[in-house]
Amino acid sequence: MTLADEVRIALDGKWRHVREQSRRELAEMDLAYDHDLGLDDARERTFAQLKQLVPTGVPAAGFTKDHGGTGDPGMAVTGIEMLAQFDLSLMVKAGVQWGLFGGAVENLGTEKHHALIPRIIDLDLVGCFAMTETGHGSDVQSLETTATYDPSTQEFVLSSPTPSSRKDYIGNAAKHATIAAVFAQLVTRGESHGVHCFLVPIRDEHGEDLPGVTTSDDGHKGGLGGVDNGRLMFHDVRIPRENLLNKYGQVDEGGAYSSPIDNTNRRFFTMLGTLIRGRVSVGGSASASAEVALSIAGRYALQRRQFGPADQEVLLADYRMHQRRLLPLIAKSYAYRFAQNQLVARMHRLQTADEVDAQLSRELESRAAGLKAAQTWHASHAIQESREMCGGAGYLAENRLTTLRGDVDVFTTFEGDNHVLFQLVAKELLTAYASEIGGLDPVGMARFVASTVTDVVKERTAASQLIQRLIDARPGKGDDDHDLLDRGTQLSLFEDREQHVIETAARRLQRAAKADDDEAFRIFNNAQDHVIRCGRVHVDRIVLEAFTAGIARCEDDEAADLLREVCTLFALVSIEDDLAWFMGHNRLSDTRAKTVTALVNDQLAKLRPHLLTLVEGLGVPEHTLNAAFLES
Amino acid sequence: MTLADEVRIALDGKWRHVREQSRRELAEMDLAYDHDLGLDDARERTFAQLKQLVPTGVPAAGFTKDHGGTGDPGMAVTGIEMLAQFDLSLMVKAGVQWGLFGGAVENLGTEKHHALIPRIIDLDLVGCFAMTETGHGSDVQSLETTATYDPSTQEFVLSSPTPSSRKDYIGNAAKHATIAAVFAQLVTRGESHGVHCFLVPIRDEHGEDLPGVTTSDDGHKGGLGGVDNGRLMFHDVRIPRENLLNKYGQVDEGGAYSSPIDNTNRRFFTMLGTLIRGRVSVGGSASASAEVALSIAGRYALQRRQFGPADQEVLLADYRMHQRRLLPLIAKSYAYRFAQNQLVARMHRLQTADEVDAQLSRELESRAAGLKAAQTWHASHAIQESREMCGGAGYLAENRLTTLRGDVDVFTTFEGDNHVLFQLVAKELLTAYASEIGGLDPVGMARFVASTVTDVVKERTAASQLIQRLIDARPGKGDDDHDLLDRGTQLSLFEDREQHVIETAARRLQRAAKADDDEAFRIFNNAQDHVIRCGRVHVDRIVLEAFTAGIARCEDDEAADLLREVCTLFALVSIEDDLAWFMGHNRLSDTRAKTVTALVNDQLAKLRPHLLTLVEGLGVPEHTLNAAFLES
Repeated sequence: MTLADEVRIALDGKWRHVREQSRRELAEMDLAYDHDLGLDDARERTFAQLKQLVPTGVPAAGFTKDHGGTGDPGMAVTGIEMLAQFDLSLMVKAGVQWGLFGGAVENLGTEKHHALIPRIIDLDLVGCFAMTETGHGSDVQSLETTATYDPSTQEFVLSSPTPSSRKDYIGNAAKHATIAAVFAQLVTRGESHGVHCFLVPIRDEHGEDLPGVTTSDDGHKGGLGGVDNGRLMFHDVRIPRENLLNKYGQVDEGGAYSSPIDNTNRRFFTMLGTLIRGRVSVGGSASASAEVALSIAGRYALQRRQFGPADQEVLLADYRMHQRRLLPLIAKSYAYRFAQNQLVARMHRLQTADEVDAQLSRELESRAAGLKAAQTWHASHAIQESREMCGGAGYLAENRLTTLRGDVDVFTTFEGDNHVLFQLVAKELLTAYASEIGGLDPVGMARFVASTVTDVVKERTAASQLIQRLIDARPGKGDDDHDLLDRGTQLSLFEDREQHVIETAARRLQRAAKADDDEAFRIFNNAQDHVIRCGRVHVDRIVLEAFTAGIARCEDDEAADLLREVCTLFALVSIEDDLAWFMGHNRLSDTRAKTVTALVNDQLAKLRPHLLTLVEGLGVPEHTLNAAFLES
Repeated sequence: MTLADEVRIALDGKWRHVREQSRRELAEMDLAYDHDLGLDDARERTFAQLKQLVPTGVPAAGFTKDHGGTGDPGMAVTGIEMLAQFDLSLMVKAGVQWGLFGGAVENLGTEKHHALIPRIIDLDLVGCFAMTETGHGSDVQSLETTATYDPSTQEFVLSSPTPSSRKDYIGNAAKHATIAAVFAQLVTRGESHGVHCFLVPIRDEHGEDLPGVTTSDDGHKGGLGGVDNGRLMFHDVRIPRENLLNKYGQVDEGGAYSSPIDNTNRRFFTMLGTLIRGRVSVGGSASASAEVALSIAGRYALQRRQFGPADQEVLLADYRMHQRRLLPLIAKSYAYRFAQNQLVARMHRLQTADEVDAQLSRELESRAAGLKAAQTWHASHAIQESREMCGGAGYLAENRLTTLRGDVDVFTTFEGDNHVLFQLVAKELLTAYASEIGGLDPVGMARFVASTVTDVVKERTAASQLIQRLIDARPGKGDDDHDLLDRGTQLSLFEDREQHVIETAARRLQRAAKADDDEAFRIFNNAQDHVIRCGRVHVDRIVLEAFTAGIARCEDDEAADLLREVCTLFALVSIEDDLAWFMGHNRLSDTRAKTVTALVNDQLAKLRPHLLTLVEGLGVPEHTLNAAFLES
């Protein structure tokens, strides 16, 4: 086995067998996006590809054995993520059908609904996930669609009361879905019980809208041409009472509402929490697409020459500036993959456990939100930089980078806008995972900041034994001039920064506790950038810890050595990105801070000879890259 | 007149009449990009639109009266830039035909060639600009295509000797051009005289390739669907001797070469220098597209609400984080527009002067290169952020942002890769505009660093009287704790940083003077990021100075006051972006540095009430925004 193989094995993680299976099977399908196809044909092609996925077993893995699946959530999200290495339209289409729509039925429904799951797995029943409205995306608690119970017929009546209540951007809704999982305010006996999910048939067998349903098409988008995103409006659409996915809320025949969770807020966010797999898949898939782009740009840098005498023009990869652009992005991709693997393993553990641990579930939700934001921005940035690193050739569709870029673009705002997600992470940290779960209403959020946030943060950042050992063993601790190449020092800098940023944010927000609403909003708003920064630095810390832990699990010494160098580059560029903070807060002396850039450059020189190994380690087989200019 | 009108007038600059004309005339044409069209139809539509531009007078403005034009270069580039507000495919197509192809004939040709210009203006003769090759883009001096003189027939024989010598990404080449301005190594009597430009017919009247010419299609791209980019290969293609554009180099009947410029390097870069209008147009057009995107996102922020009680959900524009994302980009757009206006005015002055001032020409080239890089990155970033600020709606083609994003993407690498352009700017600064003009060969560049660079930089940064007055009047100079809101202080910080960065880069490179080639490359390469940074900070400085000068010319007091606040935001966010440098180099104390973010936030609060005015001031009429979600 080559060093690259060993590196790839370390990066592949626990569901390596799924990755290997996907690399094999997907390469044999004809998945390259075809830009010559018009909207309709592109969608039909992706839909046809979706059907090819059924026998791979990935769709079934997402559902429990009781419901007709195979009960392997880790495989389900890894399998979806691997699709992103081939075509993001297909990944999204699969995610919508089996992850979002199927996930809603599985997690929010009860026995009767679960009977549908085999048909969902087989694509006999194609659905969509109708949550977002034109007027409400991030704040889904305020959705305007209503489902009003009519005891006289024992039906719910679905209604879209305003233009802004139109369901929008819904994958599968423009064309292929015959049924929708619709999120709407449940109203019975004149009282609203908050957002619930309903199964609403939307099309007949001929693809015509059912009475009262108006579907329409979102048309062309910035990418994802194979996905039929569309809109839904409901005009007094009647569905049987049983179509309420009633695990967390039930209406009896007479219209009496009951729920195992009394608090409306808590009920809603518990429901949302069960749908976590969407965010996990989106983050992982974004990273997968970044890996493809960096594999293309990395290989191009090793073949394209520029400037210098004709017989010895210099390889792009040998220019310091090119190394500066490429290698830190590769290092980040390594870091996020380790963090994502850890996230998937935790998710798998929780979702296959016999009992639900509420605290662990909320931590997982927070982590999934933060890693989704970090990974999707990383992907946008890495693919963009890859495109630019390939110059004019990078702009041609035949070299794939622009397609990746357009496709992944929406990932930064769907499944939650990234800023909102970081704010969500911050909220959990700042409110010490308060038992009172709530939304992101700014006033409410400011009010809930825990007075004891400091202690909780300490607890939260209490690292695993390994991390703590490294931190304790760092040289010259207490000294201002840290050894910046030491992992313990780096970990300690990240942890310390997180704690400080959260503590100071909490102090600013605590003033809102007794303020009136306007003043509380003002206090929140003045600190909003600071609050969001809490989420960011928290994610930075858990990613560095995950990278460190991942290396410790690597069984090949040479691979582990190389991964350590990559991790050092990741840590150094992260510190460099935030250097002003570390200096301004006396975490790094001016003298030491000035060495950071030189240390980064040293690290680039050290990793340059391993560039091909690092590219191969990303695990995107060369024959699947599908970039014309590499076919030589 | 409203305040927004006054602001727009200040921003419109000297060619306001052209802008007003374009706003009027272009709005009446049907220019919105149509995503339903296939490749061929989209290209034909753009070509048809191109023909509509002929009567506007913009094409003729780019050529002198002697040659059949109207001799108004300022109008020519402003008119092209205005196209970018409507459709970038059309802007590029116009730029290729009249700016690049026509510009080559005008500036590199002589009388016989100039006779073609009326046909070029009228689109009776459609050409392409065949410079870039698959293997050579940034380093065009090393092009591989050859044009070998055959005295027996008095012809040049064009040849593409290698796959990498294929002309690539050439606009108009896939379909519409019947002739190409081909850049090739001129060889006569067995000796090469460097790159020259030749007029080569490529297609007959039926659109078929002429003998020996092989055209092909670059196909789908990341955007610019209306532009037919293509490839050209030449297999012993013979053209008459007279088809050499012979202003800077001539071959007589017998094959003797002569040129008014002896030095091959200098000749080539003088020729390139005459083609400066391309870069000027690309930078300005990128900024124009950013203005469109920010107008869309700005207006959306004033209509879309999120979170809060149903009856008083908060406007996006009222969130601090949203202000943080939007307003600095608007401030940057203002800054770049003032800088671009200044650049265009200088270009116009030089190009309409009776004599060529070589020193001023080279400064202009450097400035055009730097502003092209800065503006195109700004545009990519601003449009991307605008897309994300509009969430899922921003991803729909009907809201235009993704089209802008895809179209403008290539601007960061065409007409010179941005990193290479910053390196070019740095080279001019570091070599003190050495009379020995050369390319960007790393070794050569390191060798040419002037030993007297310090003095030259002092001269170079010697600001205009106005700037110097502000710098002299800054409060507490010599004091460490500057008043960061004072313009003189800001200007002084920018100038001081530039000088320091250049001096230290020069000191690093000077060691290469006596080193061997390998060592000289190593020295250059280790400093490459530092070198490129010279270009960046130089551009930052000239942009702030241009903004300051632009405000001084504003005739309306209220508008000038508002522009001053915008300029302050621009300066503060620029300082914030590079805070670690200012701290590490003792330009800002840690204490003062920590106030920067608070000052930025104050400035955001101050500008928030003026958001609509600032958007309107950008000068993109609301009815031309063409974003579906604003049509309410």
